[in-house]
Amino acid sequence: MSLQDLERPARQRLLNIAIVGATGAVGAELIGCLERRGFPVGQLKLLASARSAGRTLVFKGQPVAVETLTAEAFDGVDIALFSAGAAISRQFAPLAAARGCVVVDNSSAFRMDEGTPLVVPEVNGGLLAGRPMIVANPNCVAAIAVMALAPLHARNPIVRVIGSTYQSASGAGAAAMEELELSTAAYLAGEAFTPKVLPHPYAFNVFSHNTAIDPATGYNGEETKVMAEVRKLMGTPDLRVSFTCIRVPVLRAHSMALNVEFEGQVTANDALSWLADAPGVRLVNDNENNHFPMPSEATGVDDVLVGRLRGDASDPTGRTLTLFLSGDQLLKGAALNAVQIAEQYAS
Amino acid sequence: MSLQDLERPARQRLLNIAIVGATGAVGAELIGCLERRGFPVGQLKLLASARSAGRTLVFKGQPVAVETLTAEAFDGVDIALFSAGAAISRQFAPLAAARGCVVVDNSSAFRMDEGTPLVVPEVNGGLLAGRPMIVANPNCVAAIAVMALAPLHARNPIVRVIGSTYQSASGAGAAAMEELELSTAAYLAGEAFTPKVLPHPYAFNVFSHNTAIDPATGYNGEETKVMAEVRKLMGTPDLRVSFTCIRVPVLRAHSMALNVEFEGQVTANDALSWLADAPGVRLVNDNENNHFPMPSEATGVDDVLVGRLRGDASDPTGRTLTLFLSGDQLLKGAALNAVQIAEQYAS
Repeated sequence: MSLQDLERPARQRLLNIAIVGATGAVGAELIGCLERRGFPVGQLKLLASARSAGRTLVFKGQPVAVETLTAEAFDGVDIALFSAGAAISRQFAPLAAARGCVVVDNSSAFRMDEGTPLVVPEVNGGLLAGRPMIVANPNCVAAIAVMALAPLHARNPIVRVIGSTYQSASGAGAAAMEELELSTAAYLAGEAFTPKVLPHPYAFNVFSHNTAIDPATGYNGEETKVMAEVRKLMGTPDLRVSFTCIRVPVLRAHSMALNVEFEGQVTANDALSWLADAPGVRLVNDNENNHFPMPSEATGVDDVLVGRLRGDASDPTGRTLTLFLSGDQLLKGAALNAVQIAEQYAS
Repeated sequence: MSLQDLERPARQRLLNIAIVGATGAVGAELIGCLERRGFPVGQLKLLASARSAGRTLVFKGQPVAVETLTAEAFDGVDIALFSAGAAISRQFAPLAAARGCVVVDNSSAFRMDEGTPLVVPEVNGGLLAGRPMIVANPNCVAAIAVMALAPLHARNPIVRVIGSTYQSASGAGAAAMEELELSTAAYLAGEAFTPKVLPHPYAFNVFSHNTAIDPATGYNGEETKVMAEVRKLMGTPDLRVSFTCIRVPVLRAHSMALNVEFEGQVTANDALSWLADAPGVRLVNDNENNHFPMPSEATGVDDVLVGRLRGDASDPTGRTLTLFLSGDQLLKGAALNAVQIAEQYAS
């Protein structure tokens, strides 16, 4: 028996995979996750706009040419991982599915459709049992938040969540990450810089998430998505939830402060024990050394870091905790979660 | 009548002012605020440790030598503005006061002493009527927070505040600001950098405030100070309040997301009208153009910027608002507030 046989179940079928939006920030991470996690890839198709077609990327040491996205490109593909924006998903995901290709969609296009499962495998992976043809991958903040919320909710139902986010540039794509670096370098050099990707200066600045404000509610598009998706992912349509989404000058990990009210009384130690064996969660809660979740330590890490657990001083009934998380926006917030969904189909 | 007579009340007495900690980040702003606001300074004494004595700073275009801090240095001084840490304040503030010098103390030394007024002039400036010899200047987060909270509380009593901060480097002093710039430059150059001032990497990172965690509560020293000082400043000892204090890679303005529960129902429009004429508050609440408070626009500005006002989606009773603020940590969060207190004595 060869080493390869030991690593892979004997009769595991190889799957043909397509990545739509292969040249973007999430696309690069999708390729990396497939390779790093030993996904049983047969053929890998890299699809993008005609503008990017002809570029060559590398998978397992081999060059793979980027092809133009067309409906026909999905022929013979088992699973397509979409990360090219909601408009592309709306157009091409149904075409792919009609050709028998399962779609894992990282855009917002189908997330709130009643018939489309919105999945974080550790939280509600059971929804994949029926092998749906289109699966939605959640908003990055929602995906990271529920990694900590769901294991707590399973032990003591959560009734209210108030969140404030510290979101990284990567959520706005590779160009925003570059703009953060370039504008910061310009600032340090005392040079002027005109932002092109984001609407506000990003160097040493924070600003409210640049999605449109809903005039009816005052919440922006990001907050509205996060609140709806947290409810759908947790299976708690009546959960009371409020988020304030703020961009901070961090490259690729999202953090958030969560104030979480439970149905029954709860202590920080209860929550620590419930989170200790939660899959995909790493406790970073070292009070003595003041060591808690940070983007610098969440970057490039699959697990969501959780810490700063304490009983909320503003709730005298002892039913509220407050905590802080950091998770890689491009991994658990996007590519990793999509590949984990695809792995359910491969198993 | 000369132009000078027009600008200053005819018989306004000139006051001799001392700045303790003149060479620090707040010290520089104190000098700037006295000059910019036309404070009636007679003699200006700049005091610092022996290490800094002999340096020369500039006030109104004139060089002023930094002298060593001693008890005798306060002879003939009317008001001393202290910003050299709690230990120096505990030692020298009583000595200055015993010499008839009013102390406005920017450290935490006396803030929670029952007999010491803790003052933000716009909020509780009436406490200065008795001309106390020692006045405490609040923690920067508390000072900025109450600028928005107090005018709201005056119209509809606030019962609970949940805050998450986005705190700048300046709160940890000039050395931390320099460390943020140097570590960011190193990061961009691909060079290693070992933090010396702060315990964690600061370039493109956020981290929980680096004050010790209280083992009994799980809150850190900064959060504990903010919560106690907000209660004292608002005159609401029973206010339910919880803060999460986070450092972000911003140079000198603090921001915060506040979730504020009121006794009675409230709308965002109510709050906007109550804040519109609040002294020291500038509304930045342009939903259409996605323009809200940002450190980049609060830096160097006296007013606290307030915006993102909306009814909290997680409170079905309609008694909660959520909002976002930015204020200059070195101005309203420190030097400006101290000089405003001193102005009450000069008037």
